[in-house]
Amino acid sequence: MVNMKVDLNADLGESFGNYTCGMDEEVIPYISSANVACGFHASDPLVMAQTVRLGVENHTAIGAHPGYPDLVGFGRRNMAVSAKELKAMVQYQVGALQAFCKANHIKMQHVKPHGAMYNMAAKDEKLACAIAEAVYEVDPDLILLGLSGSLLIDMAKKTGLKTANEVFADRAYQADGTLVPRSKDGAVIQDEQIAVSRTIQMVKKGFVTAIDGTEVPIQADSICLHGDGKKAVLFAKMLFEELTKEGIEILPLRKVVE
Amino acid sequence: MVNMKVDLNADLGESFGNYTCGMDEEVIPYISSANVACGFHASDPLVMAQTVRLGVENHTAIGAHPGYPDLVGFGRRNMAVSAKELKAMVQYQVGALQAFCKANHIKMQHVKPHGAMYNMAAKDEKLACAIAEAVYEVDPDLILLGLSGSLLIDMAKKTGLKTANEVFADRAYQADGTLVPRSKDGAVIQDEQIAVSRTIQMVKKGFVTAIDGTEVPIQADSICLHGDGKKAVLFAKMLFEELTKEGIEILPLRKVVE
Amino acid sequence: MVNMKVDLNADLGESFGNYTCGMDEEVIPYISSANVACGFHASDPLVMAQTVRLGVENHTAIGAHPGYPDLVGFGRRNMAVSAKELKAMVQYQVGALQAFCKANHIKMQHVKPHGAMYNMAAKDEKLACAIAEAVYEVDPDLILLGLSGSLLIDMAKKTGLKTANEVFADRAYQADGTLVPRSKDGAVIQDEQIAVSRTIQMVKKGFVTAIDGTEVPIQADSICLHGDGKKAVLFAKMLFEELTKEGIEILPLRKVVE
Amino acid sequence: MVNMKVDLNADLGESFGNYTCGMDEEVIPYISSANVACGFHASDPLVMAQTVRLGVENHTAIGAHPGYPDLVGFGRRNMAVSAKELKAMVQYQVGALQAFCKANHIKMQHVKPHGAMYNMAAKDEKLACAIAEAVYEVDPDLILLGLSGSLLIDMAKKTGLKTANEVFADRAYQADGTLVPRSKDGAVIQDEQIAVSRTIQMVKKGFVTAIDGTEVPIQADSICLHGDGKKAVLFAKMLFEELTKEGIEILPLRKVVE
Repeated sequence: MVNMKVDLNADLGESFGNYTCGMDEEVIPYISSANVACGFHASDPLVMAQTVRLGVENHTAIGAHPGYPDLVGFGRRNMAVSAKELKAMVQYQVGALQAFCKANHIKMQHVKPHGAMYNMAAKDEKLACAIAEAVYEVDPDLILLGLSGSLLIDMAKKTGLKTANEVFADRAYQADGTLVPRSKDGAVIQDEQIAVSRTIQMVKKGFVTAIDGTEVPIQADSICLHGDGKKAVLFAKMLFEELTKEGIEILPLRKVVE
Repeated sequence: MVNMKVDLNADLGESFGNYTCGMDEEVIPYISSANVACGFHASDPLVMAQTVRLGVENHTAIGAHPGYPDLVGFGRRNMAVSAKELKAMVQYQVGALQAFCKANHIKMQHVKPHGAMYNMAAKDEKLACAIAEAVYEVDPDLILLGLSGSLLIDMAKKTGLKTANEVFADRAYQADGTLVPRSKDGAVIQDEQIAVSRTIQMVKKGFVTAIDGTEVPIQADSICLHGDGKKAVLFAKMLFEELTKEGIEILPLRKVVE
Repeated sequence: MVNMKVDLNADLGESFGNYTCGMDEEVIPYISSANVACGFHASDPLVMAQTVRLGVENHTAIGAHPGYPDLVGFGRRNMAVSAKELKAMVQYQVGALQAFCKANHIKMQHVKPHGAMYNMAAKDEKLACAIAEAVYEVDPDLILLGLSGSLLIDMAKKTGLKTANEVFADRAYQADGTLVPRSKDGAVIQDEQIAVSRTIQMVKKGFVTAIDGTEVPIQADSICLHGDGKKAVLFAKMLFEELTKEGIEILPLRKVVE
Repeated sequence: MVNMKVDLNADLGESFGNYTCGMDEEVIPYISSANVACGFHASDPLVMAQTVRLGVENHTAIGAHPGYPDLVGFGRRNMAVSAKELKAMVQYQVGALQAFCKANHIKMQHVKPHGAMYNMAAKDEKLACAIAEAVYEVDPDLILLGLSGSLLIDMAKKTGLKTANEVFADRAYQADGTLVPRSKDGAVIQDEQIAVSRTIQMVKKGFVTAIDGTEVPIQADSICLHGDGKKAVLFAKMLFEELTKEGIEILPLRKVVE
């Protein structure tokens, strides 16, 4: 599907106790949806309270960003969890964040798994299904945000959830629509102008040029941005402005996938 | 106030991963409300999912049992947390349990702080207030269950919450209505028959005989039971039967304090 | 190699805070070496202090039992840790237990990885190597106890460590000397008398009859026992007595592999 | 005692997983002893390995910096731990760091409790005693570094440990030799030149001018520096240079208190 609207998302609220991480206040003006860490791979209750408040003040839609219980590994190390364990840990984290949404009189918009959980959910059917069911049971109105065209998106649709396809501005794609692994040459698009053009193409035309030159259809409901450094924030600003110039509306997920 | 109805509550779901704790299935037939641990002082997401399910199957009302983040100390060690931190950690835990309630299509009934948090909330105004506000903001229909006549009950009322006064069948009281500290002689009532009689007196007549012989008015909306051993379960059964024999109805909190 | 001596080991000190796990005091009379959990997959500092003391009182040799940092999963869930991370987490845990050994004026005897770490170390060369180096750097006199004939044993030898081969009394073996996975029929030997005979054969004759009937050479320096239930303790007692009757000496690892 | 030598110490290795904290590499040239966090209030095994290595490369003496098990509170929140629990948690942490010292062929020099543990140890006799015994049992050659003139220093001496008195360059003192609480006006010396002069006076003359103008005798074996920001590092450099100019030798603790 071709869009003239798109969501910009970023992971916020990744600080933890005494440890500060990310430039949340700098990047939030350029995003329409925030994925808020829930205390398993990052964050703590106080940071969550503050991050939801920041989102409310900036009219940014809030989503849960559940991860594996691995603070020291930042949720990036894969763990052999069972589908049952995964379902319970997703419900726990989604519920925890919902409390702060309620305290702020807002409705949580979406759920996006983090790190190793995101990657596993994109390709393991049992785990993808466990996440989708977890979310659906807690609130069937939540949108599941996952890797564009991945198994997680399929499972979530089957479960009855609304879904949103995430694309990456700065990553190369393979001919089958999957990301070029970071370990390979050319996996990351260094030239920001090219990254912007590719993103506009994905949003407006619905395809991406793969690393082998083929044109691959891709659904771009939301673009993943980062707030973990000055360069990242500047790129967020640039992308926000270029998309706007192209007549593409930046809207929260719920207005993109409705 | 004198009642012909009372709630029986117990702390359930205190197992953790590979570690089993408590005889939840044995004690649940005798209680009307379960305080479910939320992963900070005990429990984990899977145990929470299973405990809420157990409650649903037994038509037992479910409440959150938030504690300090101290698994190794089982939430019994006092921690110098700020009111802000406390508020956030209560909201986090209440929300986490609510997710499992929603997945089971039930409404959470109450919140009862655990261990050191319960004790601090009974006497520290700032902390009591933080807990009451935390609960009210997440769901103003939740009942706050605390030590009978304590500061937490006062603060919760001021905040606008419904409250429930908890009494202990097997504990001696002082002339001012507070519990005789466990470190003192006579703090625990060993004779089960006496414990039962005292409980009936508290429920029906609204007073307790203090350790110095004076009769102290006390509100008994809910009686705290334990499921951490065979003896405890037998006492729960005995109390349940004796109260019923006396014509006292055992009802979930929401029907006692309405 | 054929032996008339063997070590009996068991995992001790797996309690955690308020949670009790295992019948350490019942099983310790029948073992010569204890693998003491180090706080990552089970245990806490106080339990470690008490377990080392228990070992000293029973003249049982003490070893460290490091695991993945996964209390809720009891160290049984595989985690994608890097070799560098693994090396550091093994050194950390070995050092932590050494402190309690020093406080009790004893020398730590061995290190045996736990659960998922044990399984990975048996087949992943980089991880096996990381563990061996970790142990060697902290104390080259420590014995590395691992699955008989596994990669971990090979890597530890290469690193310069003394090694000890562990066998299982109640597990079936495949023709290549590896264990029959628990998911397969016949993986666990249910008949205790057969388990005892097989063990005696492994110790005295140096081979085991595989599930397909072939006789497979196997080195049996230490036999893994369990203390997690009455049945397990009774089997430990039975094996201890039968081995003794056969003239096989039960000795701590350091006297078996010297 | 008046000195022409003094130790400069700083807390290093407080990063944790993905979270960076402190400018360890910038401050290490100006200190003679590093207090290395041990994973309870900050740090993780990999950070500990790297920090000990950094110390070795810079010829900085290494000490353990044990804290309460409270990562989210950075060990700054007091916890009601028993003497037994405290003793075990100190031994655990000291042992864990010793493993990295051994792997680097160095001997650990000292132990300095962190945050809330440091503050409690300065005034609670049972806890001070538990820490001193914990350290002595693990290695009687370790130096205990604590608040100058505090109960911890007394208890450590009684236990048989060498001790080192820590003073603060930028803190005001009361007439009884204790620190002016941070909540009071004038608690922190803002003027860096005054802070330097006061420090030189404490080292060379053995007294400090209290906030009420009285001259209070004080033992200054070690001065606490910080590496948590550019300003802190610049002050460390300035103090290092001014002390050197005054003919005061900057030496590791073991050479100051011998």
